Amino acid sequence: MLRLYDAPLSGNCYKVRLLLSHLERPYERVDVNLLSAESRRESLEGRTPIGKVPVLELDDGRCLAESNAILWYLARGTPFLPTDPFAQAQTLQWMFFEQNNLEPNLAVARQWVVILKEAERHREALKAKYEAGGTALSVLDRHLERRRFLLGQQPSVADVSIYAYTHVAEEGGFDLEPYAAVRAWLTRMAKRPGHVPMEDAEAPGPVRQER
Amino acid sequence: MLRLYDAPLSGNCYKVRLLLSHLERPYERVDVNLLSAESRRESLEGRTPIGKVPVLELDDGRCLAESNAILWYLARGTPFLPTDPFAQAQTLQWMFFEQNNLEPNLAVARQWVVILKEAERHREALKAKYEAGGTALSVLDRHLERRRFLLGQQPSVADVSIYAYTHVAEEGGFDLEPYAAVRAWLTRMAKRPGHVPMEDAEAPGPVRQER
Repeated sequence: MLRLYDAPLSGNCYKVRLLLSHLERPYERVDVNLLSAESRRESLEGRTPIGKVPVLELDDGRCLAESNAILWYLARGTPFLPTDPFAQAQTLQWMFFEQNNLEPNLAVARQWVVILKEAERHREALKAKYEAGGTALSVLDRHLERRRFLLGQQPSVADVSIYAYTHVAEEGGFDLEPYAAVRAWLTRMAKRPGHVPMEDAEAPGPVRQER
Repeated sequence: MLRLYDAPLSGNCYKVRLLLSHLERPYERVDVNLLSAESRRESLEGRTPIGKVPVLELDDGRCLAESNAILWYLARGTPFLPTDPFAQAQTLQWMFFEQNNLEPNLAVARQWVVILKEAERHREALKAKYEAGGTALSVLDRHLERRRFLLGQQPSVADVSIYAYTHVAEEGGFDLEPYAAVRAWLTRMAKRPGHVPMEDAEAPGPVRQER
């Protein structure tokens, strides 16, 4: 069985749980305490050179890190990854955009504001996050104005990837009001069969286990 | 013929020129002035939703953005992308790591220090870049201690991707001295047949054109 080294509050981990739910694939879930370096090291030691969650462990023990690489691996051969090479490259284009332009702003702002409750301490840096994250949200909004999903009519792993931190951007202090196309897309995504919310620890599939 | 919307100082653009040189693929090169928003808009309008270089234009006019998505697209069917799905996912793992952990620290520090010459203005933020970038370089160093290249015996697009900003990290104020395995790997990469330096505008292949 697949095993996911996971953290409930991490959008990067949620991406993988969301795709696994869409694909109806059972998996075992191992909670990693992100706020304790020791606990994180114990859980992940020998499993990933990168030291971050999520990590996906296959039934033969091989491990893979980086949420978007995991999504790509799991989505091969399913409707969530196009088969045409150019469309696959476009899917990756949006996933690299996510890791470079969206996640470092939306996820870090959310981490500072709601997880660590250190908004005041990071006041200046937060301004830069809101500006750069706003630019990324504008790119997304213009692209979605004439599309149901990022690549057209059907959702792909690019949508799953970008949904994760965008749907909780307001927790970090972003205002999604100006981005009507993004908001409509978020609603479409949440209505898909197989959708599970981020903090639904009791979602069908996983066998929960603490570490 | 392939056309690359390019900027000579951008490591993300250099990645694509380096791979094209390794693959001996001819291409036309269009310089985009990154410091002028208007010039950038004029050059890229209608070619990419994302608004960044590099952008690769295929001979049928279709365009692709995000350096690592471009590398992946060009490398299919060549020795620079493994064919095994798990090895492909590991290649992507390192490329997502590059865009999330390495590039935002190494490239931004270099931008502030040598391109914009604003080190003093960003003094506090630079400290955070050195710390986070140092963590990423340590990950890379431990991984390369027992490997010739990131995935083993042969270089892949993951190596090309990570080489681009790592080999100029010291321009941004990083000290590579503690990372012996990274330094040995940089030397191995630079000795590969087909290697071209970053600022060698006269490298074989491209037909230069200004915009």
